[in-house]
Amino acid sequence: MNGRRELGSLSPRAVEDVVRRALAEDAPWGDLTSETLIPAGAQLSAKLVAREAGVLSGITVFSAAMRLTDEATEVTPLLSDGLRFEKGDVLADVSGSARSVLTAERVALNFVQRMSGIATMTSQFVAAVAGTRARIVDTRKTTPGLRLFERYAVRCGGGQNHRFSLSDAVLAKDNHLAVLTRNGERNLTEALREVRQALPHTAHLEVEVDRPNQIAAVLDAGVDTIMLDNFSLDAMRAAVEQIGGRALVEASGSVKLEAVRAIAETGVDLISVGALTHSARALDLGLDAQTGAATGADR
Amino acid sequence: MNGRRELGSLSPRAVEDVVRRALAEDAPWGDLTSETLIPAGAQLSAKLVAREAGVLSGITVFSAAMRLTDEATEVTPLLSDGLRFEKGDVLADVSGSARSVLTAERVALNFVQRMSGIATMTSQFVAAVAGTRARIVDTRKTTPGLRLFERYAVRCGGGQNHRFSLSDAVLAKDNHLAVLTRNGERNLTEALREVRQALPHTAHLEVEVDRPNQIAAVLDAGVDTIMLDNFSLDAMRAAVEQIGGRALVEASGSVKLEAVRAIAETGVDLISVGALTHSARALDLGLDAQTGAATGADR
Amino acid sequence: MNGRRELGSLSPRAVEDVVRRALAEDAPWGDLTSETLIPAGAQLSAKLVAREAGVLSGITVFSAAMRLTDEATEVTPLLSDGLRFEKGDVLADVSGSARSVLTAERVALNFVQRMSGIATMTSQFVAAVAGTRARIVDTRKTTPGLRLFERYAVRCGGGQNHRFSLSDAVLAKDNHLAVLTRNGERNLTEALREVRQALPHTAHLEVEVDRPNQIAAVLDAGVDTIMLDNFSLDAMRAAVEQIGGRALVEASGSVKLEAVRAIAETGVDLISVGALTHSARALDLGLDAQTGAATGADR
Amino acid sequence: MNGRRELGSLSPRAVEDVVRRALAEDAPWGDLTSETLIPAGAQLSAKLVAREAGVLSGITVFSAAMRLTDEATEVTPLLSDGLRFEKGDVLADVSGSARSVLTAERVALNFVQRMSGIATMTSQFVAAVAGTRARIVDTRKTTPGLRLFERYAVRCGGGQNHRFSLSDAVLAKDNHLAVLTRNGERNLTEALREVRQALPHTAHLEVEVDRPNQIAAVLDAGVDTIMLDNFSLDAMRAAVEQIGGRALVEASGSVKLEAVRAIAETGVDLISVGALTHSARALDLGLDAQTGAATGADR
Amino acid sequence: MNGRRELGSLSPRAVEDVVRRALAEDAPWGDLTSETLIPAGAQLSAKLVAREAGVLSGITVFSAAMRLTDEATEVTPLLSDGLRFEKGDVLADVSGSARSVLTAERVALNFVQRMSGIATMTSQFVAAVAGTRARIVDTRKTTPGLRLFERYAVRCGGGQNHRFSLSDAVLAKDNHLAVLTRNGERNLTEALREVRQALPHTAHLEVEVDRPNQIAAVLDAGVDTIMLDNFSLDAMRAAVEQIGGRALVEASGSVKLEAVRAIAETGVDLISVGALTHSARALDLGLDAQTGAATGADR
Amino acid sequence: MNGRRELGSLSPRAVEDVVRRALAEDAPWGDLTSETLIPAGAQLSAKLVAREAGVLSGITVFSAAMRLTDEATEVTPLLSDGLRFEKGDVLADVSGSARSVLTAERVALNFVQRMSGIATMTSQFVAAVAGTRARIVDTRKTTPGLRLFERYAVRCGGGQNHRFSLSDAVLAKDNHLAVLTRNGERNLTEALREVRQALPHTAHLEVEVDRPNQIAAVLDAGVDTIMLDNFSLDAMRAAVEQIGGRALVEASGSVKLEAVRAIAETGVDLISVGALTHSARALDLGLDAQTGAATGADR
Repeated sequence: MNGRRELGSLSPRAVEDVVRRALAEDAPWGDLTSETLIPAGAQLSAKLVAREAGVLSGITVFSAAMRLTDEATEVTPLLSDGLRFEKGDVLADVSGSARSVLTAERVALNFVQRMSGIATMTSQFVAAVAGTRARIVDTRKTTPGLRLFERYAVRCGGGQNHRFSLSDAVLAKDNHLAVLTRNGERNLTEALREVRQALPHTAHLEVEVDRPNQIAAVLDAGVDTIMLDNFSLDAMRAAVEQIGGRALVEASGSVKLEAVRAIAETGVDLISVGALTHSARALDLGLDAQTGAATGADR
Repeated sequence: MNGRRELGSLSPRAVEDVVRRALAEDAPWGDLTSETLIPAGAQLSAKLVAREAGVLSGITVFSAAMRLTDEATEVTPLLSDGLRFEKGDVLADVSGSARSVLTAERVALNFVQRMSGIATMTSQFVAAVAGTRARIVDTRKTTPGLRLFERYAVRCGGGQNHRFSLSDAVLAKDNHLAVLTRNGERNLTEALREVRQALPHTAHLEVEVDRPNQIAAVLDAGVDTIMLDNFSLDAMRAAVEQIGGRALVEASGSVKLEAVRAIAETGVDLISVGALTHSARALDLGLDAQTGAATGADR
Repeated sequence: MNGRRELGSLSPRAVEDVVRRALAEDAPWGDLTSETLIPAGAQLSAKLVAREAGVLSGITVFSAAMRLTDEATEVTPLLSDGLRFEKGDVLADVSGSARSVLTAERVALNFVQRMSGIATMTSQFVAAVAGTRARIVDTRKTTPGLRLFERYAVRCGGGQNHRFSLSDAVLAKDNHLAVLTRNGERNLTEALREVRQALPHTAHLEVEVDRPNQIAAVLDAGVDTIMLDNFSLDAMRAAVEQIGGRALVEASGSVKLEAVRAIAETGVDLISVGALTHSARALDLGLDAQTGAATGADR
Repeated sequence: MNGRRELGSLSPRAVEDVVRRALAEDAPWGDLTSETLIPAGAQLSAKLVAREAGVLSGITVFSAAMRLTDEATEVTPLLSDGLRFEKGDVLADVSGSARSVLTAERVALNFVQRMSGIATMTSQFVAAVAGTRARIVDTRKTTPGLRLFERYAVRCGGGQNHRFSLSDAVLAKDNHLAVLTRNGERNLTEALREVRQALPHTAHLEVEVDRPNQIAAVLDAGVDTIMLDNFSLDAMRAAVEQIGGRALVEASGSVKLEAVRAIAETGVDLISVGALTHSARALDLGLDAQTGAATGADR
Repeated sequence: MNGRRELGSLSPRAVEDVVRRALAEDAPWGDLTSETLIPAGAQLSAKLVAREAGVLSGITVFSAAMRLTDEATEVTPLLSDGLRFEKGDVLADVSGSARSVLTAERVALNFVQRMSGIATMTSQFVAAVAGTRARIVDTRKTTPGLRLFERYAVRCGGGQNHRFSLSDAVLAKDNHLAVLTRNGERNLTEALREVRQALPHTAHLEVEVDRPNQIAAVLDAGVDTIMLDNFSLDAMRAAVEQIGGRALVEASGSVKLEAVRAIAETGVDLISVGALTHSARALDLGLDAQTGAATGADR
Repeated sequence: MNGRRELGSLSPRAVEDVVRRALAEDAPWGDLTSETLIPAGAQLSAKLVAREAGVLSGITVFSAAMRLTDEATEVTPLLSDGLRFEKGDVLADVSGSARSVLTAERVALNFVQRMSGIATMTSQFVAAVAGTRARIVDTRKTTPGLRLFERYAVRCGGGQNHRFSLSDAVLAKDNHLAVLTRNGERNLTEALREVRQALPHTAHLEVEVDRPNQIAAVLDAGVDTIMLDNFSLDAMRAAVEQIGGRALVEASGSVKLEAVRAIAETGVDLISVGALTHSARALDLGLDAQTGAATGADR
């Protein structure tokens, strides 16, 4: 599997930290229902079932929520992250103390439903641009506290990640450029060249342009990527031609699923889609207890 | 304003904790772009503008993100949480160091867009049931780590909150009842009466029923609320009549906006809607820098 | 064991967090005594012994302190939480590295002595009201940081818990009522009815009254529990009769052990006792090393 | 005030950390009562009143609980920590938002009541030994998480502190000595001399003895303090004479208030009392709202 | 100041976190010396003085240590980070409570001495390569927990930063390449091209080579930077020529100050120096109290 | 091993906390290189090799960094902390997932290189004073956040520790004394006697003197240790004679390795050396992968 970033790169440490916090949020001083209704010894088997089709993401987070609630709970994933499933498919088997499983259920589902929702939406965008050179990439419009999880979900859906944070790459937008050039008094190409000199050599330099006549100046500065913000399809095509491979080209601006194919066909390298993380709906996954599976109630 | 829980009850301590974590996530070791392109002394004025209509939620979180990045940044809210705005309305004025404002922008928007998205969707459900006795309530299907914020957003939209967590009220579902009655071998009414005795006197006891013939047994046990899970409209109406005010009645089960009015008209007291928190899309709000507003670039 | 909240509901995560902090507090940079006097290889067997009679609470916290100091230490509880023991009884066996056991000893004892002290005092109040309808309940007068542990200890002693915190139930006291009614200008019944409407449906509404003539107004508002604050026995009896089962009745106000039976016999449902958690003394439990049990000193 | 450790040495950082945690424990997601019954604009003045006599400790912690809930709340202490008060004395004035004051009340009182309880009990022991050379000192039998606060309270009562933790001084007890001498096979004096060599030069070396015939060997090793564990008064007197100022002498072992004077008169330098921190009861202090003081209810 | 990354980019949040931890480490339960010897009211003025020449770094961290100990302490920096000073120069004035200043002194100095030591060593390397195209850059051989501070110190000395962490850029070393090519069975150029495709477009791709004959394959893959590991000067010169500007060239391998000029003159773009952060010695800076400056001792 | 503080006293809890933070610092969102270049199934064996001679310290921290990255990684130490090694010696074997080992490598090395550097420098000072009564001790000039580790490293090198922090012993310096005596107006001996009375009996009292004529007054006060700050050798000798065993004597003041023997021969008990922790350079240790050891690349 060389030459491809594996999906399984969710740091166990990070998963543990976030899941622990979520469990504490959902049961700050115990689960009143399970503790009162369920005998301590009762066992339960259950299945994680898809109630609609989609792409799986977060099965290890689902497991972690179960295991961090009770390390004796067993979770057997039946599908790997990044794979497609149909309505009715069983995604994992769960068994353990009935109390523990029912206590962890909601948090475990909250993660895997949200992440699979993102992966599924991403896979639709990726499918829509199949055969073009365009990659679907995410943005920083992620849920506060869950960026690591949501970027992973984007990869599960076949997308790629943009920069992780403000710290690891430059993306100069209109406001930055206005200040940099003192509202146009200063030469943009020259200013950007100085920026390049000041940056660490590992920092990627991407610049957003709002209109075609900015491209030449930016290109002359030797930037790595030019982002076309809200360009028409014709303007995009012209920009791709003008840039001619001297920088990567990214299309941006409230990209809808139905419009993405046409954008990809303009020849851009990257299409960033904020909706992947800010507006994906949770996928409908549920935990079905096995009939007659709760045992040991007398203990 | 007696007799109504105020919206402004987002604990400043909790806001600070969560926002600090979000800021650290988005700029773990600084903002490479601002630090390289923006002079330290440059000032910026900007407006938080609605690019679509909706209900505001999270303006104090937006402010906190600005202030925790740089306490010298000034944020003046022009609208209060819980109020409606139209496309183009200005929701807040922001001014301060250009670097600081641009560094905080994305995190500040991520919060207020998400929360206002929830408030807006909630307000649509609330409007749809206007004039009935039904209240729209949320669920535990919230974003891990953001439950406090999302429940507040539901209140901003005119909804009410269900239990906060597993620790503060009982909600017995089918799996719990199966274990409690040993798959039916034990009398449900009697078992629930024992549960009531075992609970703290402040604990609300709510029981979910899947079919009408369970209602009598649950009602006899003296529970506080009966949740009707996926009942037809006719079955709901019959259940409301059967219960006759001896317990609150909650309707539940993937409730859609277009169906909620009919459900409310069955006479139920509560309608819980998971989508409010698990599938609301972010509202489109943006930060517009003032033309010519960046000053002091020479400093 | 249905219909009764089990004692074993101390969240392992919460125990671990609090015990880790306590261990760090007691040995911020190691145990100078053990490291200097005890060879690394020496082993020790010891017994947790009761130096006075009481009710056990916190044996899992005792174990956690031993195990979080050194996971190789073995602790075998010989009695379960909630059970009574006599002076001289052995409550647990401990064996492991002499260094580790002696390092953990004080913290482990500090928890189990304090918790068993609370359980024991609670059991005395519970015994005193045996045969009446009254339950002994705790208050929010707990040790900062240890509420979860102290409420569990109350349950070990046979008591029940009141609300956990300010967040999970309403308890309106004189100051709240004064403000609510604007010092009497506003009708209390009506004001409380509005409060009820504003609350989440799962929130229990309890109101404190200082004098009998407040009861009617509160009762008419449909509250869940009425707390009688510092009522005489006669006044309590009259109040119980007046309320007539339409709300739960709680007696409150520096209740002493010698007075609790008479209070219970007035017919109240609940008696809250702050002293259970704010003034219980630690029970005298000790760790006795076995004669000749320290071995391996030459290693 | 040279040559005397001031009482005011409670680190503000530590106070803030512990009080924040306590406030979060008591109101994890807001104060349902205040938010529903008290208008946001209502103001309240109140007095911290002593309902019994005692010695004050923790007034800054009381203030911190008020201020960390709402930095606009004003607290004016009328007495300093370490000073004695009578029943009915007003210890502090409080004014601010009614919501904020009532939300913080319980946590603020929990601290100052507990700490003043310890200071008051300590002052009784200190008074009992007045005129002797004996100092009253605390032990490590403190409440987990509150050691810093409880040791400060001991100082407020006129006591002194023993070692803070296992890390900052040696206290060799019977179990340590048994292992050190391989149950007596090795010469104790020599072994202790080696211990002294191995210790940092700043480490105090204290050794516990159970019986008089151990004293000579320990004394010859040049230890700093000898602790007499459960010695009779006669044995204590003899030990003090035998030691003759070559080491400090500490009396230990479930010391009761009525017995402490006689112990002090044997000439020991130090008397350690575990009960100061493990069994002091909370002092009865309360917050009295001013009649007619809640204002602004219409806002 | 455009086009140059400012030095002042140490995040105040990060500084506060690290400095708080350092202060707690150095005074876990107060400063026994100051609390006993220094009256609470005594004031002190002092100067931060250079006892040897160097380049300043960390003056804001010095200030933060003073201010986080006592916000009333005033610190007036007399020199900015990144500037050179001579022996005897006064770098800052400090005044405030004598207790607070003396308590914070050591931690404040520990930071600024260490950071200035790094800045000073860096400035020597930078001076040595003046006039060449080579930049001096740091490595990941930083002090655990202080990377942000130490990278800032490198910038203060005129150096530039390499990647911050494993997360923000690729640096493929010999072990990685051996696995990637299955010990040579697979074509390196092709494998690296696949890697490039799999990476986010913002990720910089740097590859280390041990010997000249690897360069062609790496260059053909289109990497961003080639690191020459332990090349002779002749081999470096040849490599620079062979690469011909198609990738940046970095020299690496225990670079000594006396050798760095010759390396720079081979034409490499970057010289990474681990010693800057793993082996710089602390600069000798001290805090001199003003004669007669301690006042108010009677208070 | 009685009578000697073992080296192995690095608290596993503290190690885990610090190492987790270091790992998160170095890979906040994964290791881009390993995840892209190394197949998930590839295994790696490697050796920790000394590239120069020295004294080992931190091998358990090295192991912890490997194990906290991936608990399946096996680390077999071949030498214990505190022992000397030569260039080329293998210090530990490591085997596990290639990804995990390469991800943890840098952090693991950063700790063990730094700690071994300190141990090695310490051992040089200790060797230089062999045969004298002088002990080499450390200072509070440690790296913020790593004091526990660095003091342990000093012990590994044969040194001893001075006080850990401001909280556990008194060290009165010139500034403290100036304030204590109100710049000389007050009698120093008397003032110090009062200090002694005010201190806990376990607190060590050390006083710094700048010139010989201060010694008599300090000695009369009965302090435990007198620190001679920047005394000439002759003055030290005279001071040792004057003190005559009535207090320990510590020499201090930028002590160099070449000067330490002469200082020790003056008869002082302790020589404190700040450079041990503030200026030791990292020792050159490396991780060598085994030839052909990476296997399973096809998985």
